[in-house]
Amino acid sequence: MKKISFEKTLKRIGERVKVLGWVHSIREHKNFVFLDLRDEKDWMLQVVLEKKLVEGINLEDVVEVEGEVLKRPEGMTNPKIETGEIEIKGEKIRFLSKSKILPFDLKEINLSLPEYLNWFPVVLKNEKVKAIFKIQEKIIEGFRESAKKLGLFEFHSPILCAFSSEGGAEVFKVDYFSKEAFLAQSPQLYKQILVSSFGKVFCVTKAFRAEPSLTSRHICEFVSLDCEVGFIESLEELLSVCEKILKGMFKKLEKEAKKELNLLKIE
Amino acid sequence: MKKISFEKTLKRIGERVKVLGWVHSIREHKNFVFLDLRDEKDWMLQVVLEKKLVEGINLEDVVEVEGEVLKRPEGMTNPKIETGEIEIKGEKIRFLSKSKILPFDLKEINLSLPEYLNWFPVVLKNEKVKAIFKIQEKIIEGFRESAKKLGLFEFHSPILCAFSSEGGAEVFKVDYFSKEAFLAQSPQLYKQILVSSFGKVFCVTKAFRAEPSLTSRHICEFVSLDCEVGFIESLEELLSVCEKILKGMFKKLEKEAKKELNLLKIE
Repeated sequence: MKKISFEKTLKRIGERVKVLGWVHSIREHKNFVFLDLRDEKDWMLQVVLEKKLVEGINLEDVVEVEGEVLKRPEGMTNPKIETGEIEIKGEKIRFLSKSKILPFDLKEINLSLPEYLNWFPVVLKNEKVKAIFKIQEKIIEGFRESAKKLGLFEFHSPILCAFSSEGGAEVFKVDYFSKEAFLAQSPQLYKQILVSSFGKVFCVTKAFRAEPSLTSRHICEFVSLDCEVGFIESLEELLSVCEKILKGMFKKLEKEAKKELNLLKIE
Repeated sequence: MKKISFEKTLKRIGERVKVLGWVHSIREHKNFVFLDLRDEKDWMLQVVLEKKLVEGINLEDVVEVEGEVLKRPEGMTNPKIETGEIEIKGEKIRFLSKSKILPFDLKEINLSLPEYLNWFPVVLKNEKVKAIFKIQEKIIEGFRESAKKLGLFEFHSPILCAFSSEGGAEVFKVDYFSKEAFLAQSPQLYKQILVSSFGKVFCVTKAFRAEPSLTSRHICEFVSLDCEVGFIESLEELLSVCEKILKGMFKKLEKEAKKELNLLKIE
């Protein structure tokens, strides 16, 4: 049997299906166990199995379940989740990957910064942490789309440089075959070179600043969203480019990251 | 007067306009000089000026011209260029940036590799060299669009790492506040971490290999197009993902880089 997405179960009421996901929550009730499975889009799906089938099950186990899609009885539906009208009566479960018992609650993470970073691969399963990544994706998408709409050409700026790009103080040194090289602090020089050929350019690139970290908001490596536009005749023209790009980014967020912004209580 | 693009001159016959571009070629004829101006999209535009207005003009000068858009007389049109039906009768020219006389022909570059690299900011104005960059842009666009269509999540992988990502031999070392850090040879580890949270992911990132360069086709820093897909049930499923992404990339090239591929004689 071929696996189907959680989304597709909605159209398969009365049919046998196979679904794969992470065990998000476990509730026991008499001889049965109710699981919420989570997929990569954070959709939830309720699965009911006989207790004997799920011995030793843990949160975050990766499982494959075969069973029948049933409409939930009236009064038992859950309007808070997309699949709240149905559930799977599981007949077979296979453990694709077993999880250890976590030392913290993945649903409400409350860790010190060192713990947070040490557990990051696991922390990254938390809905709110995922939301940060999703918002980042949409910010960059919005930047790229707006820049392209304005006719800017996208290029990839070098990281390894033979010189420091903005002053010499805060630069990382690299051992380049026993010579000295530096990590780019900015794509500035390359943007200016390309403008003399392509007129209007942008890049989404990593930049590096060797400033010792004093706060938790400080990073040495960051994604830089960079534009450079030639033949500008006035400050107003330049400001209008900035405005169009920023507007495009915020529109994208509003349209495609509403759920994530709400989760993080950002308006 | 506001500048207009070369494209828009076609609709302004009989009107006074202002255009900006690079001096691509210069031809003298009696008391007049004929210039081909080039814009950032490699469009050409013929401008006719009295000789006295353009004293000391060089190829690659950046100029601003004001003048009237005229329909060219019959028999004088040039079907090879988009603006071949018109020309500008220039009345005023302003030099925004003067160019030195180049030691090689920018239209047919024939340089040794060290010369080519030393002159790269200028070489980059050549149509064929620009075509390489444009094709690269479209390859990456095609990859990104296809991956997104398949539901893959885009993320930005770290470059500065505390360990080497694929064996230890060919890695660049960085002085990280007197500790040792390394440049990522691959986003492999990070892709695998994100798959356990996002299910299907991709990234467009720089990767670094400290292999001493023996040929002109060898580079230590490259753009890596990386996918990682979880819940794969068979080799066929994996191959189908690869096929869809590669097809998407080639379709993109066929559709949006035809001119550039033709220029480089790539079929």
